[in-house]
Amino acid sequence: SDTAVLTVTCPDRGGIVAAVSQFLFNHGANIIHSDQHSSGLAGGTFFMRMEFSLAGLDLALEPLRRAFQSVVAEPFGMEWRLSDAARPGRMALMVSRYDHCLLDLLWRVRRGDLNAEVPLVLSNHEDLRGDAETFGVPFHVIPVTRENKPEAEAEQVRRLREAGADFVVLARYMQILSGDFLREVGCPVINIHHSFLPAFVGANPYRAAFERGVKLIGATSHYVTEDLDAGPIIAQDVIPVTHRETPESLVRLGRDVERQVLARAVKAHADHRVLVEGNKTVVF
Amino acid sequence: SDTAVLTVTCPDRGGIVAAVSQFLFNHGANIIHSDQHSSGLAGGTFFMRMEFSLAGLDLALEPLRRAFQSVVAEPFGMEWRLSDAARPGRMALMVSRYDHCLLDLLWRVRRGDLNAEVPLVLSNHEDLRGDAETFGVPFHVIPVTRENKPEAEAEQVRRLREAGADFVVLARYMQILSGDFLREVGCPVINIHHSFLPAFVGANPYRAAFERGVKLIGATSHYVTEDLDAGPIIAQDVIPVTHRETPESLVRLGRDVERQVLARAVKAHADHRVLVEGNKTVVF
Amino acid sequence: SDTAVLTVTCPDRGGIVAAVSQFLFNHGANIIHSDQHSSGLAGGTFFMRMEFSLAGLDLALEPLRRAFQSVVAEPFGMEWRLSDAARPGRMALMVSRYDHCLLDLLWRVRRGDLNAEVPLVLSNHEDLRGDAETFGVPFHVIPVTRENKPEAEAEQVRRLREAGADFVVLARYMQILSGDFLREVGCPVINIHHSFLPAFVGANPYRAAFERGVKLIGATSHYVTEDLDAGPIIAQDVIPVTHRETPESLVRLGRDVERQVLARAVKAHADHRVLVEGNKTVVF
Amino acid sequence: SDTAVLTVTCPDRGGIVAAVSQFLFNHGANIIHSDQHSSGLAGGTFFMRMEFSLAGLDLALEPLRRAFQSVVAEPFGMEWRLSDAARPGRMALMVSRYDHCLLDLLWRVRRGDLNAEVPLVLSNHEDLRGDAETFGVPFHVIPVTRENKPEAEAEQVRRLREAGADFVVLARYMQILSGDFLREVGCPVINIHHSFLPAFVGANPYRAAFERGVKLIGATSHYVTEDLDAGPIIAQDVIPVTHRETPESLVRLGRDVERQVLARAVKAHADHRVLVEGNKTVVF
Repeated sequence: SDTAVLTVTCPDRGGIVAAVSQFLFNHGANIIHSDQHSSGLAGGTFFMRMEFSLAGLDLALEPLRRAFQSVVAEPFGMEWRLSDAARPGRMALMVSRYDHCLLDLLWRVRRGDLNAEVPLVLSNHEDLRGDAETFGVPFHVIPVTRENKPEAEAEQVRRLREAGADFVVLARYMQILSGDFLREVGCPVINIHHSFLPAFVGANPYRAAFERGVKLIGATSHYVTEDLDAGPIIAQDVIPVTHRETPESLVRLGRDVERQVLARAVKAHADHRVLVEGNKTVVF
Repeated sequence: SDTAVLTVTCPDRGGIVAAVSQFLFNHGANIIHSDQHSSGLAGGTFFMRMEFSLAGLDLALEPLRRAFQSVVAEPFGMEWRLSDAARPGRMALMVSRYDHCLLDLLWRVRRGDLNAEVPLVLSNHEDLRGDAETFGVPFHVIPVTRENKPEAEAEQVRRLREAGADFVVLARYMQILSGDFLREVGCPVINIHHSFLPAFVGANPYRAAFERGVKLIGATSHYVTEDLDAGPIIAQDVIPVTHRETPESLVRLGRDVERQVLARAVKAHADHRVLVEGNKTVVF
Repeated sequence: SDTAVLTVTCPDRGGIVAAVSQFLFNHGANIIHSDQHSSGLAGGTFFMRMEFSLAGLDLALEPLRRAFQSVVAEPFGMEWRLSDAARPGRMALMVSRYDHCLLDLLWRVRRGDLNAEVPLVLSNHEDLRGDAETFGVPFHVIPVTRENKPEAEAEQVRRLREAGADFVVLARYMQILSGDFLREVGCPVINIHHSFLPAFVGANPYRAAFERGVKLIGATSHYVTEDLDAGPIIAQDVIPVTHRETPESLVRLGRDVERQVLARAVKAHADHRVLVEGNKTVVF
Repeated sequence: SDTAVLTVTCPDRGGIVAAVSQFLFNHGANIIHSDQHSSGLAGGTFFMRMEFSLAGLDLALEPLRRAFQSVVAEPFGMEWRLSDAARPGRMALMVSRYDHCLLDLLWRVRRGDLNAEVPLVLSNHEDLRGDAETFGVPFHVIPVTRENKPEAEAEQVRRLREAGADFVVLARYMQILSGDFLREVGCPVINIHHSFLPAFVGANPYRAAFERGVKLIGATSHYVTEDLDAGPIIAQDVIPVTHRETPESLVRLGRDVERQVLARAVKAHADHRVLVEGNKTVVF
């Protein structure tokens, strides 16, 4: 299916949908899916995602981008992106020792369920090398200690850039990334946190859930910001648990929610369905 | 919030969104929400729902309708409807002896959660008169027997028309409605079936679920057609059950799903979010 | 169904199940349901619930209690309770202005879904008098202000005792109860909090959920302790939400979860299925 | 944790729990978990599962079995099994070409989440050899055609017996097994069906779900009987879907439910939590 995806964020006002859809129609683009959202009419922000067929297009994507910028984007003050849907995103993975999120993502990429390719898996441990290499994916270890953290992060950034990563997924990567890393890496970083945020931030959320005696445990996938566990949430889910569970069985049960929620968030991101404003997301 | 809702169904082709949004923009209508769906580009059907503000409109709704018909609807071969969102739909209820769906809907109307008013509750039994009248709603009994069914249905239709019903909700009405009734009543009829259709059609689905030993029970809300339990599905949900349950406890547990699913379907319908094609629905 | 329910909490050690089941068998009690749980073998706590038929019993309940105390409970150091399942619990309700939890519980009691009767509804406002009285339930208003709170609570306690309440349900009662009240009232108090605890404690959790951009909202029913929103959790549930929701629509959607979770917790309590230890519950 | 699991099915009557728990106590077995269920007092069937510690046992498992048979099982007419919980079950897998259920089970076995080992993967195709062999699991292909089916099944049975399979899991095995196979194989066979049974029996359930326009799709894991798709259900689950899905995307979404439901059913079976009577299961 040869399609492109246009995502737009701009101050809300009249005529946006008309201008965009008229522009696309004029250039022979047939809209296949369209979603829009406004955070409020007066002074609100307008969000839109349009997926259209490339079949009848009168321009290539690059000149279409130039035309869109001058004809539509500038008059409306838009932040926008036009992505070739056929081009899989380059998704770099960072992992430590847990295999469930890594395996699940690699398997989905292999199946073609995720519109992504994996140029690199970075880890601070050797443990998962075999799993990555089974899927034919390069695996590189950069040990991280309290002492070498700045140098290790610099090396991570270098590798991620070299790999041409469009986005990074922390598939249970157990180190906190510094603000420097996030600024330097220059692309979105998606994390999976093993609780229903904002409950149980920080380390050991399953133990905390056990101590509190909750009847549901969950997982949260979010974009990483400098503010730990506080970035914009992309996806969340929970499963019911009872008094029968131990901290260990919560960890086991939680793995299924973690991989499922992370996969859902990554798919939404890879399909250009997530728009961020401030600390929140619009997921079309 | 003074808004109107435009719903459109037509053969899919290029330029529909552009034409509609340009038309609305030209008349000063600011689009607040927009959803669209296509059942397939080549020969598919296009579905759209647009909600727009009436604030800056240059025409009243009736002239706007006339303009839309000639400028947009005719060229594209549209079936369409333009509804004043501020006008609550007239929802007639038909019930027998179970109170849970009736009470839930009447309570939601009273709270203002449902954009509807209830001009009439029709029943084949006296049992629920008190409940209806507590909410200040007219309650009328038309007994139905094997012998008088055609006359009873004719009387039901007469009452529903007199009440000016925009749609009818069978809130656990335990009689099968004939094709004649459905043709005569002239408005959509929404039912709640106490199973996850198409499993367990017909009477006594909880008993059937118990006999089969299923681990989930559910409910299905659908538009009523002559083909029993086979009309277009609007909403469905299930809850987990175990071997501990009896047919009686399944009935009790099921009531919570029934009322919840019916309320969700009715709200979607009342908010002009449901478009029907053939035996299926698009729920925006 | 003439049955009794025995609940037991004691230090875990060998022979408990054998001793209890042998005792019941000796007295002609046929066990219908049995659940047990241990928080850990070494130094853990043992929890049990047994429901048995009264049909072949050789003693009345009161002498059976005396026998159980000396033959089984004392040797094992048990805290225990033997309840006549046929006797509905006396459930007093405390409400403020929101009607959804109150109505849902009254509907369930009337329908026979909850093994409870309602001797009294206490409120700090007049608003819900009509709803309570429709169900023939006494409704009493005790206004609460910052100034009169100690006197108001004393009067509440007096009324609740007079009504012979076995337990109290705060069906969206919007005042914080003091430690004095909780000690004086002398029976369990069940609350419904409108978030997935421990996320969003305190007032206005839907607003906080909106600000945080969560993708699920929930409700938590718990026993009330002096530590606000921190008592033992009985039941929790969540529903998915999207960026489309406003703080107001979250409140509307949340009502359905609140009443459902509260009803589930109240039913578990009324059926003698909840055992508390420390800050956690075992729900059989 | 050195424990054993006793499962019992027998006609319900008084004294069963007392007899079993007294027997275990006399032999120094400390009960850790206990579950029981009765399908009805008068003429009903009693089901029980008890897990107990082997630490203080005065007999080895084999003499304990002999003692249990004569002291308890015979007098009460019990069908029973006493399993060493530390011994992983031998789980043979049968697959065709879909990898998701196979991989998910192999991941769980490797991680120690499933109390099972995999002595053999049987397939009618070569496709998944690489996946199985990555996990060090023997993979054997027996092609099945309309002509050779009886011989192929005889060979399958021979291989499964040789592998010492305690149970067989059809992890999306796309051939119907004959009654002969089921009788000869002599151990339970667990299947995953890609719909919420009894809706959409037979081939191509996702296509059927699409045509019917359902709003949920599901999966069902059940023991295989000669009656296709009608065996005792162990686990079921569903996920919500909308009009946006195609038959192809339903297949993709369904994979996540299939593997999750199958894993849950297999874990329950491997932990000796499933008792069958007639066409239904008790899952403790």
